[in-house]
Amino acid sequence: MDTPQFTDLVANLPATVPFVGPEAHMRASGRPFLARLGANESVFGPSPKAIAALRDAAAEAWMYGDSESHHLRAALATHHGVAPENIMVGEGIDGLLGNLVRLLVAPGDAVVTSDGAYPTFNYHVAGFGGILHKVPYRDDHEDPAALLERAEQTGAKLLYFCNPDNPMGSWHSARIVQRMIDAVPDGTLLILDEAYIDAAPEGTAPKLNVNDKRVVRMRTFSKLYGLAGLRVGYALGAAPLIAMFDRIRNHFGVGRIAQAGAVAAVQDQEWLRQVQDDVRTARAALGRVAAENGLHALPSATNFVTIDCGRDGAYAKSLLQALMARDVFVRMPFVAPMDRCIRITVGRPEDIETLARVLPNALRSLQ
Amino acid sequence: MDTPQFTDLVANLPATVPFVGPEAHMRASGRPFLARLGANESVFGPSPKAIAALRDAAAEAWMYGDSESHHLRAALATHHGVAPENIMVGEGIDGLLGNLVRLLVAPGDAVVTSDGAYPTFNYHVAGFGGILHKVPYRDDHEDPAALLERAEQTGAKLLYFCNPDNPMGSWHSARIVQRMIDAVPDGTLLILDEAYIDAAPEGTAPKLNVNDKRVVRMRTFSKLYGLAGLRVGYALGAAPLIAMFDRIRNHFGVGRIAQAGAVAAVQDQEWLRQVQDDVRTARAALGRVAAENGLHALPSATNFVTIDCGRDGAYAKSLLQALMARDVFVRMPFVAPMDRCIRITVGRPEDIETLARVLPNALRSLQ
Repeated sequence: MDTPQFTDLVANLPATVPFVGPEAHMRASGRPFLARLGANESVFGPSPKAIAALRDAAAEAWMYGDSESHHLRAALATHHGVAPENIMVGEGIDGLLGNLVRLLVAPGDAVVTSDGAYPTFNYHVAGFGGILHKVPYRDDHEDPAALLERAEQTGAKLLYFCNPDNPMGSWHSARIVQRMIDAVPDGTLLILDEAYIDAAPEGTAPKLNVNDKRVVRMRTFSKLYGLAGLRVGYALGAAPLIAMFDRIRNHFGVGRIAQAGAVAAVQDQEWLRQVQDDVRTARAALGRVAAENGLHALPSATNFVTIDCGRDGAYAKSLLQALMARDVFVRMPFVAPMDRCIRITVGRPEDIETLARVLPNALRSLQ
Repeated sequence: MDTPQFTDLVANLPATVPFVGPEAHMRASGRPFLARLGANESVFGPSPKAIAALRDAAAEAWMYGDSESHHLRAALATHHGVAPENIMVGEGIDGLLGNLVRLLVAPGDAVVTSDGAYPTFNYHVAGFGGILHKVPYRDDHEDPAALLERAEQTGAKLLYFCNPDNPMGSWHSARIVQRMIDAVPDGTLLILDEAYIDAAPEGTAPKLNVNDKRVVRMRTFSKLYGLAGLRVGYALGAAPLIAMFDRIRNHFGVGRIAQAGAVAAVQDQEWLRQVQDDVRTARAALGRVAAENGLHALPSATNFVTIDCGRDGAYAKSLLQALMARDVFVRMPFVAPMDRCIRITVGRPEDIETLARVLPNALRSLQ
């Protein structure tokens, strides 16, 4: 008999990982990036108060973090006007998505998402034996009506919807999203991934109603709060659902320093507003760089800009590779027809200057 | 139909959590601890070089941590004389145990452990539907022969063995552990949890043979390295097993700052040796405090001392409560006959002085 004996489910999972990280790319090239614009991190950094809190907490690193994330949940509860019982803190949205899939999805259960949406969600669904039903994007937007219809048809346990969308940067208004929540079929839980909501215009997030059992909303400190390196996300939802995470999660998985940094970040909304301004400015600048190079930047409600390269997926992939070869880290959608685009995280002025210098050469190299 | 629809497995899990954390206890009492000696954290703190590394990394918190933990695995590979392919870094041993159970245990699969050993391991096994078979301790030690026999009888996928042991502080020699590894039944994977190995005498850890497919060894930065607040552990094992974690783990779950702190910690072995000295001194001091109060400290190869209170579990529990009521945080074994004891983490001289002052009053209060 072989040792160890993996479960049948695990033995049949692919060995591929959802994302190759930026550090792995740099190790492959042997050179640092000139501009790190691929992972939708916030190059503007976290609040200086968060950095100070991280430094202050360093000497306390010998103590486990609070398994209940009490202070962080209290700060978030105040910020959102909800109760701490409506908030679950986890190891990034990725960690929370893994927990949530585990809570609901048994082998063979149906799950609905958009074809080309978040690979890490799909990874978790496959990892627990769920059956993914994928709905096409419609004009570079996720398609609420088609998603709902598929959820109804398949009896989906989970319906994943990201607003604003990654990787396209597109978004639906709060009114449409609220209509979607109201139409979720019985027995389906809507995951409303709002990782990028802090970069979206007013009127994108539906009013928070944490007593609505049909929806759970995901937020993160990894994007506009500029704390991807801490890996802290949170779920907002009905208290009975939130309580269920305690049955399966890694209770001490969010560390003490991470919690301290996140508390300071949420309490510095002034910094967040500054970053929001910076993101808007940078989106416009990226749009200009695209236009100067004959490319078309799609409208974005996120901290990245998805740029239509005007040809097919092979061409966009060549451009991506040409940028990577020149040490500019960007990513791109995986699925046609969105894969005609590349996705560039907004940068500081110096990052955008680097891109503006490198992009013409990269394009020329493709001719 | 109810929404959300949890899996049958999850719906039947208990709502209890493995451990109530120290912060939750303080919130319950409304007072800070006078001495924090319950969670086997290292009150001596981490290496000053690790603290400096954490502070230096704070400004880089906007970047995701390396999903491959390349530098940390390289540092650990050098330290242990193995290849990085033999090392998986995760969100504490707890996180890795959860991953490992998920890799191997399908509902109904047998798993063997000692009755009274690590509750968080049992929590993960229950969480994936495994059937726990528990073997009694023998003279306050885990019982290798009986564990092996039960694994053979039940066809266990996993056999959990902690050396040195938590919660008893007892240990087996490398020779006995190696004999155990050599006798693991076909089809069973031995988890050798060595969280406390850095506090054990020479000759406790069997030689590291990472190509042995029968065993995976768990290590942590949460104990003698003094970095519980980062939540970083690692598994040492055969490369094909280590690679399987990539199919299911939260790839970016160990943050950037946590990795930076752990690298600095493993590279400061001088600090570790100093802590080892401090731990030995403190164990002896705790033994004296116990004896002065008519209690008997068991021999320990860990950073805690398990103290036999000389009567039954109810008495030990009362003593624990009397100490907690006096703001001295300690814990105790859950299962008879070990629950005649309380478990006290080693402390600095001032922590032990606090205990020496409080313990006589706590004991008197029970008369």
